[in-house]
Amino acid sequence: MTETITILGSGNMARGIGTRAVAAGRTLQILSRDAEQAAALAAELGANITSGSVDSVPAGDIIVLAVPYNAARELVATYGAALAGKTVVDISNPINFATFDSLSVAPGTSAAEELAALAAPGVTVVKAFNTTFAGTLVEGSVAGVPLDVFVAGDSDEAKASISAFIADAGLRAIDAGPLRRARELEGFQLLIMTLQLNPAHESFNWNTAVKVLA
Amino acid sequence: MTETITILGSGNMARGIGTRAVAAGRTLQILSRDAEQAAALAAELGANITSGSVDSVPAGDIIVLAVPYNAARELVATYGAALAGKTVVDISNPINFATFDSLSVAPGTSAAEELAALAAPGVTVVKAFNTTFAGTLVEGSVAGVPLDVFVAGDSDEAKASISAFIADAGLRAIDAGPLRRARELEGFQLLIMTLQLNPAHESFNWNTAVKVLA
Repeated sequence: MTETITILGSGNMARGIGTRAVAAGRTLQILSRDAEQAAALAAELGANITSGSVDSVPAGDIIVLAVPYNAARELVATYGAALAGKTVVDISNPINFATFDSLSVAPGTSAAEELAALAAPGVTVVKAFNTTFAGTLVEGSVAGVPLDVFVAGDSDEAKASISAFIADAGLRAIDAGPLRRARELEGFQLLIMTLQLNPAHESFNWNTAVKVLA
Repeated sequence: MTETITILGSGNMARGIGTRAVAAGRTLQILSRDAEQAAALAAELGANITSGSVDSVPAGDIIVLAVPYNAARELVATYGAALAGKTVVDISNPINFATFDSLSVAPGTSAAEELAALAAPGVTVVKAFNTTFAGTLVEGSVAGVPLDVFVAGDSDEAKASISAFIADAGLRAIDAGPLRRARELEGFQLLIMTLQLNPAHESFNWNTAVKVLA
Protein backbone atom coordinates (compact mmCIF):
# COMPACT_ATOMS: atom_id res chain seq x y z
CA MET A 1 0.00 0.00 0.00
CA THR A 2 1.29 3.41 -0.92
CA GLU A 3 0.65 6.52 1.08
CA THR A 4 -1.83 9.24 0.27
CA ILE A 5 -0.19 12.57 -0.47
CA THR A 6 -1.65 15.92 0.47
CA ILE A 7 -0.13 18.95 -1.18
CA LEU A 8 -0.64 22.21 0.66
CA GLY A 9 -0.56 24.97 -1.93
CA SER A 10 -1.81 25.42 -5.49
CA GLY A 11 0.99 27.30 -7.21
CA ASN A 12 3.75 26.21 -9.56
CA MET A 13 5.51 23.88 -7.12
CA ALA A 14 2.17 22.27 -6.22
CA ARG A 15 1.60 21.70 -9.94
CA GLY A 16 5.10 20.22 -10.35
CA ILE A 17 4.94 17.85 -7.40
CA GLY A 18 1.29 17.06 -8.12
CA THR A 19 2.22 16.04 -11.65
CA ARG A 20 4.84 13.68 -10.21
CA ALA A 21 2.38 12.28 -7.66
CA VAL A 22 -0.05 11.41 -10.43
CA ALA A 23 2.79 9.87 -12.45
CA ALA A 24 3.68 7.78 -9.40
CA GLY A 25 0.10 6.55 -9.08
CA ARG A 26 -0.38 8.07 -5.64
CA THR A 27 -3.72 9.11 -4.19
CA LEU A 28 -3.60 12.89 -4.13
CA GLN A 29 -5.33 15.69 -2.25
CA ILE A 30 -4.70 19.39 -2.85
CA LEU A 31 -5.49 21.95 -0.17
CA SER A 32 -4.95 25.67 -0.60
CA ARG A 33 -5.86 28.92 1.10
CA ASP A 34 -7.82 29.41 -2.13
CA ALA A 35 -10.08 26.36 -2.41
CA GLU A 36 -11.15 27.31 -5.93
CA GLN A 37 -7.58 27.38 -7.10
CA ALA A 38 -7.01 24.02 -5.41
CA ALA A 39 -10.03 22.60 -7.24
CA ALA A 40 -8.78 23.99 -10.56
CA LEU A 41 -5.35 22.45 -10.09
CA ALA A 42 -6.89 19.12 -9.03
CA ALA A 43 -9.03 19.08 -12.17
CA GLU A 44 -6.02 19.97 -14.31
CA LEU A 45 -3.91 17.15 -12.91
CA GLY A 46 -6.40 14.35 -13.40
CA ALA A 47 -9.44 12.49 -12.15
CA ASN A 48 -10.04 11.36 -8.58
CA ILE A 49 -7.96 14.12 -7.06
CA THR A 50 -9.64 15.70 -4.09
CA SER A 51 -9.26 19.31 -3.07
CA GLY A 52 -10.29 21.81 -0.46
CA SER A 53 -9.10 24.65 1.70
CA VAL A 54 -6.39 24.58 4.32
CA ASP A 55 -9.16 24.87 6.90
CA SER A 56 -9.58 21.10 6.39
CA VAL A 57 -7.34 18.63 8.15
CA PRO A 58 -5.08 17.02 5.51
CA ALA A 59 -6.01 13.45 4.62
CA GLY A 60 -2.52 12.45 3.50
CA ASP A 61 0.12 10.39 5.26
CA ILE A 62 2.63 12.58 3.44
CA ILE A 63 2.07 16.34 3.59
CA VAL A 64 3.98 18.46 1.08
CA LEU A 65 4.36 22.11 2.08
CA ALA A 66 4.28 23.58 -1.44
CA VAL A 67 4.21 27.15 -0.17
CA PRO A 68 6.88 29.74 0.71
CA TYR A 69 8.77 29.23 3.96
CA ASN A 70 6.82 31.78 6.01
CA ALA A 71 3.51 30.29 4.91
CA ALA A 72 4.88 26.83 5.72
CA ARG A 73 5.62 28.00 9.26
CA GLU A 74 2.07 29.26 9.65
CA LEU A 75 0.59 26.00 8.38
CA VAL A 76 2.75 23.82 10.64
CA ALA A 77 1.90 25.99 13.65
CA THR A 78 -1.81 26.13 12.87
CA TYR A 79 -2.24 22.42 12.15
CA GLY A 80 -0.21 21.54 15.23
CA ALA A 81 -0.99 18.06 16.53
CA ALA A 82 -3.20 17.33 13.50
CA LEU A 83 0.05 16.49 11.68
CA ALA A 84 1.26 14.00 14.30
CA GLY A 85 2.17 10.65 12.77
CA LYS A 86 2.55 12.21 9.34
CA THR A 87 5.63 12.96 7.26
CA VAL A 88 5.85 16.64 6.39
CA VAL A 89 7.95 17.49 3.35
CA ASP A 90 9.66 20.88 3.45
CA ILE A 91 10.55 21.99 -0.07
CA SER A 92 11.30 25.61 0.80
CA ASN A 93 14.20 27.86 0.00
CA PRO A 94 14.17 30.56 2.66
CA ILE A 95 15.76 33.24 0.47
CA ASN A 96 16.21 36.75 1.81
CA PHE A 97 14.44 38.31 -1.18
CA ALA A 98 15.41 41.85 -0.15
CA THR A 99 19.05 41.11 -1.01
CA PHE A 100 18.95 37.74 -2.82
CA ASP A 101 22.34 37.30 -1.20
CA SER A 102 21.65 35.12 1.83
CA LEU A 103 19.07 32.90 3.44
CA SER A 104 16.49 34.33 5.84
CA VAL A 105 17.32 31.64 8.40
CA ALA A 106 20.44 32.09 10.52
CA PRO A 107 23.75 30.48 9.49
CA GLY A 108 24.05 27.12 11.19
CA THR A 109 20.41 26.16 10.84
CA SER A 110 17.89 25.59 8.03
CA ALA A 111 14.23 26.07 7.21
CA ALA A 112 13.75 22.32 7.60
CA GLU A 113 15.21 22.25 11.10
CA GLU A 114 13.24 25.33 12.11
CA LEU A 115 10.02 23.72 10.89
CA ALA A 116 10.87 20.52 12.76
CA ALA A 117 11.40 22.55 15.93
CA LEU A 118 8.05 24.29 15.42
CA ALA A 119 6.09 21.12 14.66
CA ALA A 120 4.07 19.22 17.24
CA PRO A 121 5.49 16.04 18.79
CA GLY A 122 5.21 13.05 16.47
CA VAL A 123 5.54 15.05 13.26
CA THR A 124 8.42 13.93 11.02
CA VAL A 125 9.99 16.56 8.77
CA VAL A 126 11.86 15.59 5.62
CA LYS A 127 13.62 17.99 3.25
CA ALA A 128 13.11 17.25 -0.44
CA PHE A 129 12.43 18.95 -3.79
CA ASN A 130 14.13 22.22 -2.85
CA THR A 131 16.63 21.94 -5.70
CA THR A 132 14.05 21.10 -8.38
CA PHE A 133 12.36 23.97 -10.15
CA ALA A 134 8.64 23.67 -10.88
CA GLY A 135 8.96 23.41 -14.65
CA THR A 136 11.47 20.59 -14.46
CA LEU A 137 9.14 18.67 -12.12
CA VAL A 138 6.28 18.96 -14.61
CA GLU A 139 8.65 17.67 -17.29
CA GLY A 140 10.12 15.00 -14.97
CA SER A 141 13.56 15.26 -16.52
CA VAL A 142 16.14 17.74 -17.68
CA ALA A 143 18.42 17.43 -20.70
CA GLY A 144 17.04 13.92 -21.17
CA VAL A 145 17.99 12.55 -17.76
CA PRO A 146 15.84 12.01 -14.67
CA LEU A 147 15.91 14.78 -12.07
CA ASP A 148 17.88 14.23 -8.89
CA VAL A 149 15.86 14.86 -5.73
CA PHE A 150 17.94 15.25 -2.56
CA VAL A 151 16.19 13.83 0.50
CA ALA A 152 17.41 14.76 3.99
CA GLY A 153 15.85 13.65 7.25
CA ASP A 154 16.38 12.00 10.60
CA SER A 155 13.85 9.18 10.07
CA ASP A 156 15.01 6.41 7.74
CA GLU A 157 11.42 5.19 7.44
CA ALA A 158 10.12 8.59 6.37
CA LYS A 159 12.99 9.05 3.93
CA ALA A 160 12.28 5.62 2.46
CA SER A 161 8.63 6.46 1.79
CA ILE A 162 9.50 9.79 0.19
CA SER A 163 12.24 8.15 -1.85
CA ALA A 164 9.82 5.45 -3.04
CA PHE A 165 7.44 8.17 -4.19
CA ILE A 166 10.29 9.92 -6.01
CA ALA A 167 11.42 6.71 -7.72
CA ASP A 168 7.86 5.77 -8.71
CA ALA A 169 7.55 9.25 -10.21
CA GLY A 170 10.47 8.51 -12.53
CA LEU A 171 13.03 10.62 -10.70
CA ARG A 172 16.17 9.67 -8.76
CA ALA A 173 16.15 10.09 -4.99
CA ILE A 174 19.51 10.81 -3.37
CA ASP A 175 19.70 10.17 0.37
CA ALA A 176 21.50 13.30 1.50
CA GLY A 177 21.77 12.28 5.15
CA PRO A 178 20.29 13.79 8.32
CA LEU A 179 17.88 16.72 8.37
CA ARG A 180 20.71 19.14 9.14
CA ARG A 181 22.05 18.57 5.61
CA ALA A 182 19.14 20.84 4.64
CA ARG A 183 21.56 23.66 5.53
CA GLU A 184 23.74 22.76 2.58
CA LEU A 185 20.80 22.00 0.28
CA GLU A 186 19.19 25.37 0.99
CA GLY A 187 22.49 27.22 0.73
CA PHE A 188 23.39 25.69 -2.60
CA GLN A 189 19.97 26.39 -4.04
CA LEU A 190 20.43 30.06 -3.13
CA LEU A 191 23.53 29.96 -5.34
CA ILE A 192 21.67 28.11 -8.10
CA MET A 193 18.85 30.66 -7.97
CA THR A 194 21.31 33.55 -8.31
CA LEU A 195 22.62 31.89 -11.49
CA GLN A 196 19.14 32.18 -13.03
CA LEU A 197 19.25 35.93 -12.46
CA ASN A 198 22.79 36.39 -13.83
CA PRO A 199 22.79 37.48 -17.49
CA ALA A 200 26.20 35.80 -17.86
CA HIS A 201 24.30 32.50 -17.87
CA GLU A 202 22.07 32.98 -20.89
CA SER A 203 20.80 29.44 -20.97
CA PHE A 204 19.79 29.39 -17.29
CA ASN A 205 16.22 30.56 -16.91
CA TRP A 206 14.60 28.64 -14.03
CA ASN A 207 14.95 25.59 -16.26
CA THR A 208 18.06 24.08 -14.69
CA ALA A 209 18.58 21.12 -12.42
CA VAL A 210 21.47 20.06 -10.21
CA LYS A 211 22.55 16.55 -11.06
CA VAL A 212 25.18 14.29 -9.54
CA LEU A 213 26.85 12.52 -12.43
CA ALA A 214 29.14 9.51 -12.05
CA MET B 1 49.04 36.21 -23.78
CA THR B 2 47.93 33.65 -21.25
CA GLU B 3 49.04 33.60 -17.67
CA THR B 4 51.58 31.28 -16.13
CA ILE B 5 50.09 28.97 -13.53
CA THR B 6 51.89 27.84 -10.40
CA ILE B 7 50.39 24.91 -8.55
CA LEU B 8 51.35 24.64 -4.89
CA GLY B 9 51.13 20.98 -3.97
CA SER B 10 51.96 17.68 -5.64
CA GLY B 11 49.10 15.41 -4.62
CA ASN B 12 46.01 14.22 -6.45
CA MET B 13 44.42 17.64 -6.87
CA ALA B 14 47.73 19.03 -8.18
CA ARG B 15 47.78 16.21 -10.70
CA GLY B 16 44.17 16.89 -11.71
CA ILE B 17 44.52 20.63 -12.15
CA GLY B 18 47.99 20.23 -13.64
CA THR B 19 46.56 17.87 -16.27
CA ARG B 20 43.97 20.54 -17.15
CA ALA B 21 46.64 23.28 -17.27
CA VAL B 22 48.64 21.24 -19.78
CA ALA B 23 45.47 20.58 -21.80
CA ALA B 24 44.82 24.33 -21.80
CA GLY B 25 48.31 25.04 -23.11
CA ARG B 26 49.33 27.05 -20.07
CA THR B 27 52.88 27.48 -18.85
CA LEU B 28 53.04 25.50 -15.63
CA GLN B 29 55.18 25.43 -12.50
CA ILE B 30 54.73 22.97 -9.65
CA LEU B 31 56.03 23.76 -6.18
CA SER B 32 55.69 21.43 -3.22
CA ARG B 33 57.04 21.02 0.28
CA ASP B 34 58.62 17.93 -1.26
CA ALA B 35 60.59 19.20 -4.26
CA GLU B 36 61.29 15.65 -5.47
CA GLN B 37 57.59 14.87 -5.59
CA ALA B 38 57.02 18.15 -7.43
CA ALA B 39 59.67 17.17 -9.97
CA ALA B 40 58.14 13.74 -10.41
CA LEU B 41 54.68 15.20 -11.03
CA ALA B 42 56.11 17.78 -13.44
CA ALA B 43 57.83 15.02 -15.42
CA GLU B 44 54.65 12.96 -15.42
CA LEU B 45 52.54 15.80 -16.77
CA GLY B 46 54.76 16.75 -19.71
CA ALA B 47 57.79 18.57 -20.99
CA ASN B 48 58.75 22.15 -20.10
CA ILE B 49 57.06 22.08 -16.71
CA THR B 50 59.22 23.61 -14.03
CA SER B 51 59.21 22.51 -10.41
CA GLY B 52 60.72 23.27 -7.05
CA SER B 53 60.01 23.61 -3.38
CA VAL B 54 57.65 26.04 -1.70
CA ASP B 55 60.74 27.85 -0.45
CA SER B 56 60.82 29.44 -3.93
CA VAL B 57 58.65 32.40 -4.78
CA PRO B 58 55.97 31.21 -7.24
CA ALA B 59 56.55 32.34 -10.83
CA GLY B 60 52.89 32.20 -11.80
CA ASP B 61 50.35 34.97 -12.27
CA ILE B 62 47.80 32.43 -11.07
CA ILE B 63 48.63 30.47 -7.92
CA VAL B 64 46.57 27.34 -7.24
CA LEU B 65 46.57 26.23 -3.61
CA ALA B 66 46.32 22.49 -4.26
CA VAL B 67 46.79 21.61 -0.59
CA PRO B 68 44.43 21.12 2.38
CA TYR B 69 42.93 24.25 3.92
CA ASN B 70 45.28 24.45 6.89
CA ALA B 71 48.32 24.11 4.64
CA ALA B 72 46.84 26.76 2.34
CA ARG B 73 46.62 29.14 5.29
CA GLU B 74 50.27 28.55 6.12
CA LEU B 75 51.36 29.15 2.53
CA VAL B 76 49.35 32.37 2.18
CA ALA B 77 50.71 33.66 5.48
CA THR B 78 54.30 32.67 4.72
CA TYR B 79 54.37 34.06 1.18
CA GLY B 80 52.68 37.26 2.33
CA ALA B 81 53.39 40.19 0.00
CA ALA B 82 55.14 37.90 -2.48
CA LEU B 83 51.65 37.03 -3.76
CA ALA B 84 50.60 40.67 -4.30
CA GLY B 85 49.28 41.25 -7.80
CA LYS B 86 48.59 37.55 -8.27
CA THR B 87 45.34 35.62 -8.36
CA VAL B 88 45.27 32.92 -5.71
CA VAL B 89 42.87 30.04 -6.36
CA ASP B 90 41.43 28.41 -3.25
CA ILE B 91 40.17 24.91 -4.07
CA SER B 92 39.79 23.74 -0.49
CA ASN B 93 36.97 22.03 1.34
CA PRO B 94 37.52 22.79 5.01
CA ILE B 95 35.85 19.63 6.29
CA ASN B 96 35.81 18.86 10.00
CA PHE B 97 37.28 15.40 9.49
CA ALA B 98 36.70 14.41 13.13
CA THR B 99 32.94 14.33 12.50
CA PHE B 100 32.58 14.63 8.71
CA ASP B 101 29.40 16.47 9.61
CA SER B 102 30.32 20.15 9.31
CA LEU B 103 32.93 22.51 8.00
CA SER B 104 35.87 23.56 10.15
CA VAL B 105 35.19 27.23 9.36
CA ALA B 106 32.39 28.97 11.25
CA PRO B 107 28.88 29.20 9.77
CA GLY B 108 28.56 32.49 7.90
CA THR B 109 32.06 32.44 6.46
CA SER B 110 34.16 30.26 4.17
CA ALA B 111 37.71 29.05 3.67
CA ALA B 112 37.99 31.37 0.68
CA GLU B 113 36.95 34.43 2.67
CA GLU B 114 39.26 33.48 5.55
CA LEU B 115 42.17 33.11 3.14
CA ALA B 116 41.35 36.48 1.55
CA ALA B 117 41.36 38.07 5.01
CA LEU B 118 44.72 36.48 5.77
CA ALA B 119 46.34 37.43 2.46
CA ALA B 120 48.55 40.49 1.99
CA PRO B 121 47.10 43.61 0.32
CA GLY B 122 46.90 43.25 -3.44
CA VAL B 123 46.30 39.50 -3.44
CA THR B 124 43.11 38.43 -5.20
CA VAL B 125 41.46 35.22 -4.00
CA VAL B 126 39.15 33.23 -6.25
CA LYS B 127 37.28 30.07 -5.28
CA ALA B 128 37.27 27.34 -7.92
CA PHE B 129 37.64 23.58 -8.38
CA ASN B 130 36.30 22.71 -4.91
CA THR B 131 33.45 20.63 -6.36
CA THR B 132 35.61 18.68 -8.81
CA PHE B 133 37.26 15.52 -7.55
CA ALA B 134 40.83 14.82 -8.66
CA GLY B 135 40.03 11.83 -10.84
CA THR B 136 37.38 13.69 -12.80
CA LEU B 137 39.84 16.52 -13.45
CA VAL B 138 42.38 14.09 -14.89
CA GLU B 139 39.61 12.71 -17.09
CA GLY B 140 38.26 16.19 -17.93
CA SER B 141 34.69 14.99 -18.09
CA VAL B 142 32.15 12.84 -16.32
CA ALA B 143 29.48 10.65 -17.90
CA GLY B 144 30.57 12.05 -21.25
CA VAL B 145 29.96 15.71 -20.48
CA PRO B 146 32.45 18.45 -19.55
CA LEU B 147 32.88 19.13 -15.84
CA ASP B 148 31.29 22.24 -14.37
CA VAL B 149 33.72 24.39 -12.41
CA PHE B 150 32.08 26.97 -10.14
CA VAL B 151 34.10 30.19 -9.90
CA ALA B 152 33.39 32.69 -7.12
CA GLY B 153 35.27 35.92 -6.51
CA ASP B 154 35.04 39.65 -6.04
CA SER B 155 37.29 40.58 -9.01
CA ASP B 156 35.67 40.21 -12.41
CA GLU B 157 39.10 40.38 -14.04
CA ALA B 158 40.48 37.54 -11.92
CA LYS B 159 37.36 35.44 -12.48
CA ALA B 160 37.65 36.02 -16.22
CA SER B 161 41.24 34.76 -16.33
CA ILE B 162 40.40 31.67 -14.28
CA SER B 163 37.32 31.04 -16.40
CA ALA B 164 39.38 31.35 -19.59
CA PHE B 165 41.78 28.74 -18.24
CA ILE B 166 38.86 26.46 -17.39
CA ALA B 167 37.31 26.86 -20.85
CA ASP B 168 40.64 26.29 -22.61
CA ALA B 169 41.00 23.12 -20.52
CA GLY B 170 37.77 21.79 -22.02
CA LEU B 171 35.61 22.35 -18.95
CA ARG B 172 32.67 24.70 -18.33
CA ALA B 173 33.20 27.63 -15.96
CA ILE B 174 30.13 28.81 -14.07
CA ASP B 175 30.36 32.32 -12.61
CA ALA B 176 28.94 31.69 -9.15
CA GLY B 177 29.05 35.33 -8.03
CA PRO B 178 31.01 37.05 -5.26
CA LEU B 179 33.61 35.34 -3.08
CA ARG B 180 31.06 34.86 -0.29
CA ARG B 181 29.26 32.30 -2.47
CA ALA B 182 32.18 30.06 -1.46
CA ARG B 183 30.07 29.44 1.68
CA GLU B 184 27.50 27.61 -0.37
CA LEU B 185 30.07 25.90 -2.60
CA GLU B 186 31.98 24.55 0.40
CA GLY B 187 28.80 23.55 2.22
CA PHE B 188 27.39 21.67 -0.72
CA GLN B 189 30.65 19.84 -1.33
CA LEU B 190 30.56 18.65 2.29
CA LEU B 191 27.21 17.06 1.42
CA ILE B 192 28.58 15.63 -1.84
CA MET B 193 31.56 14.16 0.02
CA THR B 194 29.27 12.48 2.56
CA LEU B 195 27.47 10.81 -0.35
CA GLN B 196 30.74 9.12 -1.37
CA LEU B 197 30.97 7.58 2.09
CA ASN B 198 27.34 6.41 2.19
CA PRO B 199 26.95 2.75 1.16
CA ALA B 200 23.42 3.59 -0.02
CA HIS B 201 25.06 5.23 -3.02
CA GLU B 202 26.93 2.30 -4.50
CA SER B 203 27.92 4.07 -7.67
CA PHE B 204 29.38 7.11 -5.88
CA ASN B 205 33.04 6.56 -5.14
CA TRP B 206 34.88 9.89 -5.43
CA ASN B 207 34.04 9.70 -9.12
CA THR B 208 31.05 12.06 -9.16
CA ALA B 209 30.61 15.60 -10.38
CA VAL B 210 27.96 18.22 -9.73
CA LYS B 211 26.55 19.47 -13.00
CA VAL B 212 23.99 22.16 -13.74
CA LEU B 213 21.83 20.81 -16.56
CA ALA B 214 19.41 22.93 -18.59
